[in-house]
Amino acid sequence: MLILYTRTGSCSLASHIALEEAGAAYETREMDFSVQQQRSPEYLALNPKGRIPALVTDRGVLSENLAILAYIAQAFPQARLAPTDPFEFGRAQAINAYLSSTVHVAHAHRHRGYRWADDPAAHEAMRAKVASNMAECFTLIETEMLEGPWVLGEAYSICDPYLFTIAGWLEGDGVDPAQFPKVSAHMARMVERPAVRKVLAALT
Amino acid sequence: MLILYTRTGSCSLASHIALEEAGAAYETREMDFSVQQQRSPEYLALNPKGRIPALVTDRGVLSENLAILAYIAQAFPQARLAPTDPFEFGRAQAINAYLSSTVHVAHAHRHRGYRWADDPAAHEAMRAKVASNMAECFTLIETEMLEGPWVLGEAYSICDPYLFTIAGWLEGDGVDPAQFPKVSAHMARMVERPAVRKVLAALT
Repeated sequence: MLILYTRTGSCSLASHIALEEAGAAYETREMDFSVQQQRSPEYLALNPKGRIPALVTDRGVLSENLAILAYIAQAFPQARLAPTDPFEFGRAQAINAYLSSTVHVAHAHRHRGYRWADDPAAHEAMRAKVASNMAECFTLIETEMLEGPWVLGEAYSICDPYLFTIAGWLEGDGVDPAQFPKVSAHMARMVERPAVRKVLAALT
Repeated sequence: MLILYTRTGSCSLASHIALEEAGAAYETREMDFSVQQQRSPEYLALNPKGRIPALVTDRGVLSENLAILAYIAQAFPQARLAPTDPFEFGRAQAINAYLSSTVHVAHAHRHRGYRWADDPAAHEAMRAKVASNMAECFTLIETEMLEGPWVLGEAYSICDPYLFTIAGWLEGDGVDPAQFPKVSAHMARMVERPAVRKVLAALT
């Protein structure tokens, strides 16, 4: 039994959807950030980073969405959630690496500016740039990455729930997703998938 | 023939070392950032992100260090640069994901604050926090990630050149690497490797 530590509204949604798509036996544990549960000694013993997601397996704990997504794809090969050819797998990882190290980071400057500066005026300056940064990232995603109907083309993969999760932040970040017709169509396609419906229903 | 687009002093060093360790047939192309060569139409046609590294293969172009490192490991399996077991591969990817999306990002706030705010005072506030952030990241690496003698333990992997590359930025970021004995020993071990010596010699 796999256990995924999650927070509703966060990037853990991507790994949650992937577990469901894989047909994995899993449970989730929702963390209450309002009481800093992610900083509790119990959780830090599992994941010293104090972040979510973390996936507890019978081999140990994995953190980082990108790594958890690749693990799910490789541990449940029958679900065909990632290419096995090295170049195509590299392409998938490059997209997920962009989502984690550029797009998620751009978004994080809206509410988590304290990670990178102590001055409240700097946090305000960071917040002011989030919408234009996210729009720039999604312009690149729309024109260069999202092949359609799924991110990598005909085959659904671990890139799809990750893009879906981050695209879900656009409106809150002040960006109208309708600017990006391929991304919007991808979001609409995602919410029709049984696994995605099941996960979203479980969160509400 | 693989072609790696690099910039001396940047994170492309990790992929460069991995190509050498893999015994790959490759060439490098050093980009001149002083004339914004990474933003030239020729380079943007290869990598629309305008960043390095990028690896040109006969199948297409891969960007993102993390993805290029995994590709090199998988395309040159005889070099055994990554575990093939899904959990162990996930552990390697989690470390490289932390290096790219947390540690490299923390470092980037020293010189690249303009990515996340327009106000020069905010850039200054970001620079002021880089040393403490990098020290915090390397405390976690020292205590929780670096098994020794190599990052994953007995087996050298694609995590080693990536950690080596980013650890090489500590002094410039105002952090004394001697605070981290395991990281320092790892750096010393790395520069003894023939592949690392060859790459470093080629850069000078």
